[in-house]
Amino acid sequence: MTAQLLDGRAAAEAIRTDVAAGVQAFTASHGSAPGLATLLAGDDPGSAWYVRSIGRAAKAAGMAWRDVRLDPAGGDTALRATIDGLSADTTIHGVIVLLPLPAPLSLGVVAERLDPAKDVDGITTASAGRLALGQPGLVPATPLGGIELLKRNGISLAGAEAVVLGRSNIVGKPLALLLLAEHATVTLCHTRTRDLAAVCRRADVLCAAVGRPGLVTADMVKPGAVVLDFGTTPNDAGKLRGDVDFETVHEVAGWLSPVPGGTESVTTAILLRNTLEAANRQVA
Amino acid sequence: MTAQLLDGRAAAEAIRTDVAAGVQAFTASHGSAPGLATLLAGDDPGSAWYVRSIGRAAKAAGMAWRDVRLDPAGGDTALRATIDGLSADTTIHGVIVLLPLPAPLSLGVVAERLDPAKDVDGITTASAGRLALGQPGLVPATPLGGIELLKRNGISLAGAEAVVLGRSNIVGKPLALLLLAEHATVTLCHTRTRDLAAVCRRADVLCAAVGRPGLVTADMVKPGAVVLDFGTTPNDAGKLRGDVDFETVHEVAGWLSPVPGGTESVTTAILLRNTLEAANRQVA
Repeated sequence: MTAQLLDGRAAAEAIRTDVAAGVQAFTASHGSAPGLATLLAGDDPGSAWYVRSIGRAAKAAGMAWRDVRLDPAGGDTALRATIDGLSADTTIHGVIVLLPLPAPLSLGVVAERLDPAKDVDGITTASAGRLALGQPGLVPATPLGGIELLKRNGISLAGAEAVVLGRSNIVGKPLALLLLAEHATVTLCHTRTRDLAAVCRRADVLCAAVGRPGLVTADMVKPGAVVLDFGTTPNDAGKLRGDVDFETVHEVAGWLSPVPGGTESVTTAILLRNTLEAANRQVA
Repeated sequence: MTAQLLDGRAAAEAIRTDVAAGVQAFTASHGSAPGLATLLAGDDPGSAWYVRSIGRAAKAAGMAWRDVRLDPAGGDTALRATIDGLSADTTIHGVIVLLPLPAPLSLGVVAERLDPAKDVDGITTASAGRLALGQPGLVPATPLGGIELLKRNGISLAGAEAVVLGRSNIVGKPLALLLLAEHATVTLCHTRTRDLAAVCRRADVLCAAVGRPGLVTADMVKPGAVVLDFGTTPNDAGKLRGDVDFETVHEVAGWLSPVPGGTESVTTAILLRNTLEAANRQVA
């Protein structure tokens, strides 16, 4: 048996096409494009690369992109002023803050002050609360992209046993809540889980989001299971490595998302879709 | 084998004693007692009984209790004014809103507007977000009381397989997040779960919070497991019935919380403890 691939690039392409059409309609109706701001504090090269990539995608979709940079030396006072300014700016409908913030900046400033209506990567306390309570709100793009990848491949989640490895605020926990909202029976595993392999083997849908290349091996996968890989650890050559040992798991799983070209390919498209949705709600 | 009882009344008594000492210290230091407001909209007899019970417990602990009533006919406008008034009132440190709110009142008014610093039953969006993100905040009293009951009986959660039945915003989901924070491997089950008995039998710690009397039977319990019962369904005689079939499960489980006298006995004590903690933070 060989797994079918969960093709993130194809899903992203389809989402971007939909978003571009929506952006065109928004712009025709409101006389200006949806505005997306990225906020990069400091000069981390990986974050700078990601910012350019988001900017290119936003412009390709017809959005207005603002590339906001912040000197971390200004501290939380400057961060607060920047966040408050973006929250108040009616030409900006979505804000993406590159994480992690360098010292001495506090994530709490963003989590508590960014207007949740513009929180297109779902990192505010308000967005997390709405997701936890099942209320409408903006959801972190990476886990939402994973769910989208499953849906676009016709994979049903209701009643399925889903196992999530990793309990980060940005992938593991929101992913568990999204799977729960799709009526999966959800188990959250982490470094303290006993007999991780046995827990993983129960999964109809196995989601790995821990950042340990090759952690998930074939013996941890139920034959025919759906395996979503959220790992994106760069190796020495700069190539992304997933959490799943692709070569062996590919022989066991029913569906498998590759790295690169899997879940991480969908993230930016979902950020744009979240921005379009946010813009449409803000002008409604 | 016969289960040891998880005695909610004893735990509540111990918590109330600690709280009373803390209230005395607060009052000596600040010249006035911590203030707790209950807000009851409408005239549901169960809620009215619960309000009186909270008020008695608050006064017994030395707190100042305000019994706020609201005519639902005033709608969300009146609810908003009441919530904003309590949020602004410096003599009130904790606010408990009796749920469910009768029509036409919206829970969203409370969830979005009540000052999270005073949200001693953890029902606001901000409190839910903080719990989900692992930030300090106030946590719903019933699930927090369940964790407290385990801890006071020396039951270790790190690495344990915990299974939660029920995904309500007030018990199931916050309980899952609390168990996760204690480093349990957590599975959330619900009406769409396939083979519920098999999932439950995996549990080292089984938590039932669904409101279906007698749902959990002995065949669903691993011998020696810890079983926490959050069910409080009144029968025709007005007696509370738990989700666990006590007679049979008692022969299989290692620990079992009775109903009444289990988790529900701890809730009010935790509400008072949350209020004391909120008061201490508000004057800090």
